[in-house]
Amino acid sequence: MTDLDPPIRGLAALPSVARLIELALDEDLGRGDVTTQSTVGTDETLATADMNARRPIVVFGLDVAAAVFHRVDARLRVVRKAKDGDAVEPGAILLEIHGPAATMLAAERTALNFVQRLSGIATGAQRYADAVKGTSTRVVDTRKTTPGWRVLEKAAVVAGGCGNHRFDLGSGVLIKDNHIVACGGVKAAVVAAKARAPHPLRIEVEVTNLDELAEALDAGAEIVLLDNMTPAQVGEAAARAHARGVRVEVSGGITLETIRAYAEAGADLISVGALTHSAVAVDIGLDFRN
Amino acid sequence: MTDLDPPIRGLAALPSVARLIELALDEDLGRGDVTTQSTVGTDETLATADMNARRPIVVFGLDVAAAVFHRVDARLRVVRKAKDGDAVEPGAILLEIHGPAATMLAAERTALNFVQRLSGIATGAQRYADAVKGTSTRVVDTRKTTPGWRVLEKAAVVAGGCGNHRFDLGSGVLIKDNHIVACGGVKAAVVAAKARAPHPLRIEVEVTNLDELAEALDAGAEIVLLDNMTPAQVGEAAARAHARGVRVEVSGGITLETIRAYAEAGADLISVGALTHSAVAVDIGLDFRN
Amino acid sequence: MTDLDPPIRGLAALPSVARLIELALDEDLGRGDVTTQSTVGTDETLATADMNARRPIVVFGLDVAAAVFHRVDARLRVVRKAKDGDAVEPGAILLEIHGPAATMLAAERTALNFVQRLSGIATGAQRYADAVKGTSTRVVDTRKTTPGWRVLEKAAVVAGGCGNHRFDLGSGVLIKDNHIVACGGVKAAVVAAKARAPHPLRIEVEVTNLDELAEALDAGAEIVLLDNMTPAQVGEAAARAHARGVRVEVSGGITLETIRAYAEAGADLISVGALTHSAVAVDIGLDFRN
Amino acid sequence: MTDLDPPIRGLAALPSVARLIELALDEDLGRGDVTTQSTVGTDETLATADMNARRPIVVFGLDVAAAVFHRVDARLRVVRKAKDGDAVEPGAILLEIHGPAATMLAAERTALNFVQRLSGIATGAQRYADAVKGTSTRVVDTRKTTPGWRVLEKAAVVAGGCGNHRFDLGSGVLIKDNHIVACGGVKAAVVAAKARAPHPLRIEVEVTNLDELAEALDAGAEIVLLDNMTPAQVGEAAARAHARGVRVEVSGGITLETIRAYAEAGADLISVGALTHSAVAVDIGLDFRN
Amino acid sequence: MTDLDPPIRGLAALPSVARLIELALDEDLGRGDVTTQSTVGTDETLATADMNARRPIVVFGLDVAAAVFHRVDARLRVVRKAKDGDAVEPGAILLEIHGPAATMLAAERTALNFVQRLSGIATGAQRYADAVKGTSTRVVDTRKTTPGWRVLEKAAVVAGGCGNHRFDLGSGVLIKDNHIVACGGVKAAVVAAKARAPHPLRIEVEVTNLDELAEALDAGAEIVLLDNMTPAQVGEAAARAHARGVRVEVSGGITLETIRAYAEAGADLISVGALTHSAVAVDIGLDFRN
Amino acid sequence: MTDLDPPIRGLAALPSVARLIELALDEDLGRGDVTTQSTVGTDETLATADMNARRPIVVFGLDVAAAVFHRVDARLRVVRKAKDGDAVEPGAILLEIHGPAATMLAAERTALNFVQRLSGIATGAQRYADAVKGTSTRVVDTRKTTPGWRVLEKAAVVAGGCGNHRFDLGSGVLIKDNHIVACGGVKAAVVAAKARAPHPLRIEVEVTNLDELAEALDAGAEIVLLDNMTPAQVGEAAARAHARGVRVEVSGGITLETIRAYAEAGADLISVGALTHSAVAVDIGLDFRN
Repeated sequence: MTDLDPPIRGLAALPSVARLIELALDEDLGRGDVTTQSTVGTDETLATADMNARRPIVVFGLDVAAAVFHRVDARLRVVRKAKDGDAVEPGAILLEIHGPAATMLAAERTALNFVQRLSGIATGAQRYADAVKGTSTRVVDTRKTTPGWRVLEKAAVVAGGCGNHRFDLGSGVLIKDNHIVACGGVKAAVVAAKARAPHPLRIEVEVTNLDELAEALDAGAEIVLLDNMTPAQVGEAAARAHARGVRVEVSGGITLETIRAYAEAGADLISVGALTHSAVAVDIGLDFRN
Repeated sequence: MTDLDPPIRGLAALPSVARLIELALDEDLGRGDVTTQSTVGTDETLATADMNARRPIVVFGLDVAAAVFHRVDARLRVVRKAKDGDAVEPGAILLEIHGPAATMLAAERTALNFVQRLSGIATGAQRYADAVKGTSTRVVDTRKTTPGWRVLEKAAVVAGGCGNHRFDLGSGVLIKDNHIVACGGVKAAVVAAKARAPHPLRIEVEVTNLDELAEALDAGAEIVLLDNMTPAQVGEAAARAHARGVRVEVSGGITLETIRAYAEAGADLISVGALTHSAVAVDIGLDFRN
Repeated sequence: MTDLDPPIRGLAALPSVARLIELALDEDLGRGDVTTQSTVGTDETLATADMNARRPIVVFGLDVAAAVFHRVDARLRVVRKAKDGDAVEPGAILLEIHGPAATMLAAERTALNFVQRLSGIATGAQRYADAVKGTSTRVVDTRKTTPGWRVLEKAAVVAGGCGNHRFDLGSGVLIKDNHIVACGGVKAAVVAAKARAPHPLRIEVEVTNLDELAEALDAGAEIVLLDNMTPAQVGEAAARAHARGVRVEVSGGITLETIRAYAEAGADLISVGALTHSAVAVDIGLDFRN
Repeated sequence: MTDLDPPIRGLAALPSVARLIELALDEDLGRGDVTTQSTVGTDETLATADMNARRPIVVFGLDVAAAVFHRVDARLRVVRKAKDGDAVEPGAILLEIHGPAATMLAAERTALNFVQRLSGIATGAQRYADAVKGTSTRVVDTRKTTPGWRVLEKAAVVAGGCGNHRFDLGSGVLIKDNHIVACGGVKAAVVAAKARAPHPLRIEVEVTNLDELAEALDAGAEIVLLDNMTPAQVGEAAARAHARGVRVEVSGGITLETIRAYAEAGADLISVGALTHSAVAVDIGLDFRN
Repeated sequence: MTDLDPPIRGLAALPSVARLIELALDEDLGRGDVTTQSTVGTDETLATADMNARRPIVVFGLDVAAAVFHRVDARLRVVRKAKDGDAVEPGAILLEIHGPAATMLAAERTALNFVQRLSGIATGAQRYADAVKGTSTRVVDTRKTTPGWRVLEKAAVVAGGCGNHRFDLGSGVLIKDNHIVACGGVKAAVVAAKARAPHPLRIEVEVTNLDELAEALDAGAEIVLLDNMTPAQVGEAAARAHARGVRVEVSGGITLETIRAYAEAGADLISVGALTHSAVAVDIGLDFRN
Repeated sequence: MTDLDPPIRGLAALPSVARLIELALDEDLGRGDVTTQSTVGTDETLATADMNARRPIVVFGLDVAAAVFHRVDARLRVVRKAKDGDAVEPGAILLEIHGPAATMLAAERTALNFVQRLSGIATGAQRYADAVKGTSTRVVDTRKTTPGWRVLEKAAVVAGGCGNHRFDLGSGVLIKDNHIVACGGVKAAVVAAKARAPHPLRIEVEVTNLDELAEALDAGAEIVLLDNMTPAQVGEAAARAHARGVRVEVSGGITLETIRAYAEAGADLISVGALTHSAVAVDIGLDFRN
């Protein structure tokens, strides 16, 4: 049904994403495309192009790419051949674009830059999700995202099979070392948060050793974050927390190589900043058909 | 001189960067900081914190970080202990921040996210620049930047010792395969561009073999871009181009391992998308002083 | 300490609040102040004015008012004589403003419109908080806020002594009737949410009778929302929920007259849309000194 | 005719209203809808919902609500079953919405928040208009509107049967006490305004007693504003003003109970700040059809 | 007094002007200043420059120019040596700018572009005002302004000694031919407007002959606009209108050569679109001191 | 093909142009159209109007005008009867607009203001282009454009047959007197720029006499800008530059009367600030059909 497939939809319809797309178009196209204007020089020629994967990837960002083409030229028609979250093989066509060649060329780089980075995140997230497969652990992201991109990057993480930690400073209580110092201890901080935080939010607290863990559990923490512990230490801490019905999150430089040991040690959640702060673009191209 | 050091300066004063910072603050702080509010709970406590490097890095983004702290709370005073472009050792202090602890905590993550990514780009660029040291080759970036971040990322590339290719579609003529097809050949495209492009811009054209190179040179191209050639092929092409006073740019999957061979083969310029599209965050922390 | 008191601070520094203030100034001052220009006609005359309460109120919005004066004319100096959250008597001075009379007149109405509405909310919230004093119940707001004003209105609610429910659709899981229908029942919905929602968020579900309550408790709901029940029904439901360690929220047309009965019946939380959707401006004036 | 009914039209097409709608969507939906995502979890399910009145009301804001649904998801189709300004009975359907259930749920609260407040203003305005029915008095609004909402609230006032005073500081000359003091008296102020104000604007001046009234009339005022007078005083003043062909506006704490006496005393215009600053939301719901 | 002279003040503080300045900086500086960066290459060098008039002009736009320098680099200090509205001789210094040479060069063109156009308007307006000197006629502008610039251009017109017509479609009632057709005649249109327009606005109607004039006067028009009449026709019409206490505006291709005849014929107001739509930049330069 | 003719297209789709259009609609329509509302008073009446030329002009800005009508009311249908760049005779119809009369009236002035100024620039540019016809000289614009309008004005210059100089400070290297002073001479400046500027940009340098010219040529300048020279001086300088394969640009107060002499003297490029800074509106009207 055609009118159920508008050119701008999903995350691309959010005002904050629209503003990011505007920034992106301003910076690349704001002064025209002098190469196309001085060579091709007209918008009469129509073309068809395929956006396709050059490597095995998990796709994300197609709605954003479609919005980019649409905003550059509403005459460009984008047909989705894959869905966000699809794992595809090299050569897989993700989008078909039909319309004036001149404006398709002008939009190409910006559209690709979005999809390449977001698919890079989704593809990396899938590797982490696979690494804990069969355990009850969920790998989650952090707030270490690219400024301006959080809603997109967090959605890409989910598309790759991982989960989201708190979206921002307003959607989760996470008491860290500095808060503990300022409150005079783990117990005081947890008690204050339980009394004053909005009730939809669980109280999570970072602990660095078993004494602090005990204090957190006694104070009523609902989640404990174990930072920079070994799998063995995590195992011990998790056993104590689980005995009290408290969930355990683990963080701190965990890699694809080490993550499974933490999962098997009993971590309910493992947060990995690298999912976003060390993501790299994957190879996706746009080919004009002859 | 105090009034020569305003809290918002340099790139952070550009309207487009200001908009990106606003997007970043909206997404992380727009709904408050429930943890700090429910534990520390007041803005009376003053603190001092140090932003410092955890690894050897080339620093970039300090102006942006300072602007972030200032916009969250104009009472936060930021003292620069390093300059953008400095290569520093682990432990080096980059910024000192003084002021209310509550708002410093609220701004910390956003400020770090900017500096970590931009310093990651500068640090990576330095490696590429070092790899061609002693040759006459300049390593340059591409338009494969993070949408919304181009002006920042291109400045980080320069801070790391590499150079900039065209900023956008309006500040350079680069005739690629699709333009050539649409114009009916290399010669027609180059001639059209020479006649019609704004005169401040040189005419660069991508060629894929020696026949196209000859055609480009005959048509008056001023720079030729050799894509996906071997160093040996580049050597032959560069000799022919240089004989005509034409500069040679090389691109296509060039890595830190392979770049020097291309430089020694005679490339005047080597463009590397990975400078930006595969940059990862470097480890930078913020520590409150006791 | 002067430089710890910048003219724009607190919530007024948030990008979203800055945008609302810009909308407000655009709509009132965007075409000049023809009355002042055609009568007073110059900005040379200096004046001092007092913003003061005409009724007993809880004050909120002084940071926003100060920002309004500052943005209209940075020469206007605003001295705070009260703090957000103060309960003051009629005649109490809230702000002193010094500077050019012409621009003070131009900013007056917009500044007052902000403070009058926000203080109206804080004042009303105090009445609700007082009505449950001595019980363990917390009165909380809803998402029925004035579009564009949520962060301000929710802060005003806290200033009046009530608490905040979820800030937005991303900072709380609240399963309502339509979600239940779509999922095929209370149990299915709760189980799905527990498995898939971000872990910092508790799972709250709306129930309309004791059968649904039992189903919700069995499924592991952490908070139950009882909608449109009598105090007696709430008492029964609360007893069952508390026995399972589950918190109880009550909502649905609860007024100042009826709220205490619900609190005494065992509600942990009572959410009141009227805190924001039926708030009215309180009387605050601005008087120029002779 | 379908293409004469675009989803965004009327006031909702104004840039300032579009910005307010963006602020509203940012604040509620900017971080996703975690409840729907974790329970319903897909946008495949289609639904139909009715927005309907729960009380007798004058409707206003349907164009804004339609724009909200459209911006959240362009696939949501909104059918208007009532027009702005209609007085409807409880149960009356205002809008029908068809499309994906998930995004309809996401947009519901924001759309309702707009319509409930604006219909509240229109409904209240109708009461004031009814109170002076049969007299020649027009009830008008003031600049005491919700910052950011003026164009919407003033249109709602008209929909309820009252009129608009000046839109902003640029569309009316209203000389008040402070201007008079600064100019050295009523006469000097009126004469200055007549000489210097843009000619499309009438000169209105606030007077507080009969002496000032005489001075205003002698100076050529075209409208006099009588503030805080009794109906008897208004009667005397109106007789004198009308004898000179000058219109009379009355203001100052006038309520539904007292307004008719002022109208019958001869006021041409009565301005009522409460039309906007004390408006409360009316009860409007959104029900999904089974 | 230093803190009464903030770098951004007056019209430059309006949100709409701030947005225009941002557009201007984005378009000229958004991609850096490659010339200065590649030659001067540092922001260490300090300089002093004088902005000065090259011709006799009426100055306008200095607040905007100062804001431009301040936004590009808050370290640039701008000292006003003239005031908006001053008539100055060639060589007169308007602004002194002190600070880093690199950013002063970057801001120079944008600052000059604003001042040159606005001073051009003020200078032209002065010629029109002089042309009617000694008569009781006021020359006023129209809505034929540069889109995005209205508030600035209308202020420049006043600085040159002319007056403003309505600011926008909301701050004046001007019934033109199309409205008359749609209402079925002059009388019907005027009567409708008198009954329904906001009371702060006078009712002005365009008439094209003496019959329409009589109809307008009978219907109670307060201002009549005579379009494209000869001075003799204006004289006759003005006599009839003045006899009824109605003001007369004249418009339609009136030039510096013909305007005095219309003024002497009795026009109270003469509106001249050319004040803004045909204004040209005046010669103003920026010289660095040795 | 209907869906290849969207209402917003071309330059009007650029984010920066969209922002300028929003500023323009805000300033004229943001407070409603009180005349139409109080007379015509409804949006039921449909009308057809023709935008037509009153003088021989080169048309530019039709895409912007169409976007203005569309944004005011998406029901207004705009049919293009001419193309940007067309030279048309008086009476030529440029656009036909169909739809509600009320909103067509509201959008009319803003749409015309855009087209009149941009067509004025295109028309003026054509005169300059004609003046050098038959020579090999290209007339180009400068950065002396209306702030906020650069992308539109530069496109209008091209539509009139002239060319563009650099778009902004980032898309061309133009070393002027101040850079030369700061670098210690022409040679030092040119050498620095050649070493450090992005390679897509040619190095242009301003010289004021033959000695500087020689220095520039020796240093490797690719374009020389001769400022304020006579045609004879230009002839001599051009001969020397051309002998070195260097292009010659001429600038400085060149008028329609003097330009041909400079062209014939050998200037490759002549830059004319008056193309934009002294452009005036051309006469274009909008007539409703009976």
